[in-house]
Amino acid sequence: MKIVQEVSLISIGNFEESNDWYIIRSEIRDAISLIVYPPGASSFTINPTKHGNGVKPIKDACMIALRDKFGWSLETSINYATRSPGKIDATKIIDNYLFALEWETGNISSSHRAMNKLSLGLLRSVFLGAVLVLPSRKLYPYLTDRIGNYEELEPYFDVWRAVRIEEGFLAIFVIEHDLLDNNVPKITKGTDGRALV
Amino acid sequence: MKIVQEVSLISIGNFEESNDWYIIRSEIRDAISLIVYPPGASSFTINPTKHGNGVKPIKDACMIALRDKFGWSLETSINYATRSPGKIDATKIIDNYLFALEWETGNISSSHRAMNKLSLGLLRSVFLGAVLVLPSRKLYPYLTDRIGNYEELEPYFDVWRAVRIEEGFLAIFVIEHDLLDNNVPKITKGTDGRALV
Repeated sequence: MKIVQEVSLISIGNFEESNDWYIIRSEIRDAISLIVYPPGASSFTINPTKHGNGVKPIKDACMIALRDKFGWSLETSINYATRSPGKIDATKIIDNYLFALEWETGNISSSHRAMNKLSLGLLRSVFLGAVLVLPSRKLYPYLTDRIGNYEELEPYFDVWRAVRIEEGFLAIFVIEHDLLDNNVPKITKGTDGRALV
Repeated sequence: MKIVQEVSLISIGNFEESNDWYIIRSEIRDAISLIVYPPGASSFTINPTKHGNGVKPIKDACMIALRDKFGWSLETSINYATRSPGKIDATKIIDNYLFALEWETGNISSSHRAMNKLSLGLLRSVFLGAVLVLPSRKLYPYLTDRIGNYEELEPYFDVWRAVRIEEGFLAIFVIEHDLLDNNVPKITKGTDGRALV
């Protein structure tokens, strides 16, 4: 799988120029490039059936790569944003701070909540930086209907850009398949993410 | 129906002290107090069955009151926030600006999108002010499961408070039933909102 765009929405302070970000960014890029389909392939081919593929197995593959290859923690509990502590999909500890990665598998309004959650973590100085992973317009039609996607969230970017934080970094990484092929099986809900990495 | 809380999240400039806001606030308060149930009653009684009542008829009743009694426009098209123009539930024109009211009938993440939409309208100076209407914690259990509600959105208020806008006003109005009664019919999806006002 490939990253077709990296959009930096908030970059206040030196994080974007830091060695920490250089490493974290490489790890995220590597984890995403490690996602393959069908299992055993060297790239990610998707069956171009409208709304034909589930998202969770693809996300799971990335999470497994972040955890097993790069030592990230998964489903990190946070308690600043919800009454019952919420979770962040993946985090990495840098000094005493967290870097947060969210890979939403919900609908577009769910992506709004994810962005607000990441923004709040920056506002509260719990995160040094955060990334939301979203499918591109080209990948979107082949995934679960109404999944959060880059093009639909983009008109709202100025809201997060305008959040008055003291220091921090917030970016969106847009992902896409490498190839299309009607002959590969559709990714079903039950697909084990471990097979995709 | 009653308003149990009015929370002002953003108030930059003079709008909150203006005569415009005095009038708009009275109209919103009146429209909400005009919502009654069952039809013909003088207050709003809800059947306290868990997830037993639909939200749309209650919203429709408020919309009808705003339009028919106070001259608001409903489903106003906006084009700053979505590729295909989105809509705002109710708007009132003040000079050349709009005041916007949203009454979300979706789930909690949908309320995040509504708040972002209103914030973006303030950021773009399309709105002078905006209000989101949400059910209280006491009303919430009797409505459609997972409906957007005050208590679940409240931990995120600081995000919208931190949006760097030049001028504008953003508030949340929290609504609640007047009475509980197991003997009143549940509000079904098909209930005509016109009967509730």
